[in-house]
Amino acid sequence: MKVKVISRILEANDRIAEENRKIFKSHGIFVINLMSAPGAGKTSLVERTIEKLDDLRVGVIEGDIAGTDDAERINRLNVPVVQINTGGACHLDANMINEVLKEMPLNDLDILIIENVGNLVCPAEFNVGEDMKVMILSITEGHDKPLKYPLMFRESSALLLNKIDLLPHLDIDLERTKRDALTLNPSLTIFEVSCKTGTGIETWAQWLRGQR
Amino acid sequence: MKVKVISRILEANDRIAEENRKIFKSHGIFVINLMSAPGAGKTSLVERTIEKLDDLRVGVIEGDIAGTDDAERINRLNVPVVQINTGGACHLDANMINEVLKEMPLNDLDILIIENVGNLVCPAEFNVGEDMKVMILSITEGHDKPLKYPLMFRESSALLLNKIDLLPHLDIDLERTKRDALTLNPSLTIFEVSCKTGTGIETWAQWLRGQR
Repeated sequence: MKVKVISRILEANDRIAEENRKIFKSHGIFVINLMSAPGAGKTSLVERTIEKLDDLRVGVIEGDIAGTDDAERINRLNVPVVQINTGGACHLDANMINEVLKEMPLNDLDILIIENVGNLVCPAEFNVGEDMKVMILSITEGHDKPLKYPLMFRESSALLLNKIDLLPHLDIDLERTKRDALTLNPSLTIFEVSCKTGTGIETWAQWLRGQR
Repeated sequence: MKVKVISRILEANDRIAEENRKIFKSHGIFVINLMSAPGAGKTSLVERTIEKLDDLRVGVIEGDIAGTDDAERINRLNVPVVQINTGGACHLDANMINEVLKEMPLNDLDILIIENVGNLVCPAEFNVGEDMKVMILSITEGHDKPLKYPLMFRESSALLLNKIDLLPHLDIDLERTKRDALTLNPSLTIFEVSCKTGTGIETWAQWLRGQR
């Protein structure tokens, strides 16, 4: 019974995602759905990316169960930002995005970054109308993540391995992580970055420009 | 509509959780529902805890979307273990636990540790019949987690701040993390541990004995 319910929710979601996609397309906005486990560095990546793309007009939608910390961080960069508080929901869905689009200056944006709720599972199941999904894995989470949370790796176009500055202090087998991720999704582009030190951010930003 | 569906699922779940609770009670088993974000160190904590509680008979139920890595790690310690693969589901529910109880030697257990799917959100919503919920937060995840994921902090009896060996390399404000967690849940007992170095594990294990 539960499976049936979920399938109906997903169908309804896909219809609204398609509406969002048309809206984005008509405004010429490239849309990224950014996903990760809690604390992997999504907001830090958004901050670094905005700094690197200073010739493009970037907007941000922040998704969190509760709180406005992330939106306040982005707001300090003088970038249009809206915070969605999902209440209990552990992911953003297309309808939530549709609801807040009227709060965004769509005519004045080149790129929209949608920062999803911190969760390696459900966000990957819900399209919101994005051009591509991007995921961050903090290397402190260990090398077993691709095989344990395969869907997000399969759905993503890029994987950023963040907190690479901590590598000397960790036991993670980074090659195994990359190999397992690429086995799940051979077209995945992988970046090693540190949002703290700035390592790898330029390479990522250049790639993002190319995708757009 | 979605909210109504979830509420019905939760009611059905609570009925089965109550059944599980009766089964555990009749066998004198103390049950822990262990939750965290992906890669915070749940399985490592289970391993360390089993080592410390070597005079008690411990069993483990492992919950993962996919894979058997965790169950294999526990199996090496010669402890009864069952792996649940949830498929898509991002949490364990009472029915999943009920289904696998017949695989566990209930007459020969003092403690059952149920390791939930790595997710800071949904697992906290689903009782499985446990005596207490315990959560791990890897300090690499940052100090904003209590305010962003309040339910799990509210529902848990104990919070383990893991990977404390990495503290010199991180910017986290640990006092703020603890203060925010205690504001959400004043009865929370907090431990600073490192499953890698063993720091704090003895204190945690002693507390656990006392709870039982």
